[in-house]
Amino acid sequence: MTGRNVAPPYWAVIFTNEQTADVAGYEAMAARMVELAATQPGFLGIESARSGLGITVSYWRDLASIAAWRQHVEHLEAQRLGRERWYQRFTLRVARVEQEWSFARNDAGQGPA
Amino acid sequence: MTGRNVAPPYWAVIFTNEQTADVAGYEAMAARMVELAATQPGFLGIESARSGLGITVSYWRDLASIAAWRQHVEHLEAQRLGRERWYQRFTLRVARVEQEWSFARNDAGQGPA
Repeated sequence: MTGRNVAPPYWAVIFTNEQTADVAGYEAMAARMVELAATQPGFLGIESARSGLGITVSYWRDLASIAAWRQHVEHLEAQRLGRERWYQRFTLRVARVEQEWSFARNDAGQGPA
Repeated sequence: MTGRNVAPPYWAVIFTNEQTADVAGYEAMAARMVELAATQPGFLGIESARSGLGITVSYWRDLASIAAWRQHVEHLEAQRLGRERWYQRFTLRVARVEQEWSFARNDAGQGPA
């Protein structure tokens, strides 16, 4: 993931979603949220992929960090717009990461980024 | 997610990866693994997305289910081929889902699939 490497336990927010047809403003807001999340206390990293279904996983030091980020004023506005315009449906899961391991090919340099 | 709905706590395996240029056989194997995982004891669902980075999250009743799936003979072969051919790097995280909530637009029918 982007951000700081830490050993478990830490926390993950798994956000899975399907978009509506109304994507105006979405990409800019999503980029802003990634930028803003990275400045929050306890932020460890974020990863996203989309192919129809979108999956974003953000990583956090503890539940208090997640709770604070959920209540950030700019994030609240993004959440409002998401419900009003951008998301057909979504599911949020908060999970405690207990184990982690990585693989990287030797020809890719040393270890994952 | 696909599969059976359950209330937390349950478990998630978060698999993030980057592929090599050698994708021969990958799609067929990935489809087979989804099909096979769905028949395993304790399987709750699976979701995937890729846009450069690939993210697959599978959901399981308990750690014993995850451990058994990791040792399934066909899955072991898929893991071997993944390391040999398909993955430039990957990270696996095992996480305990503690909270979950969903949103679905009214015009999409009642509740997420």
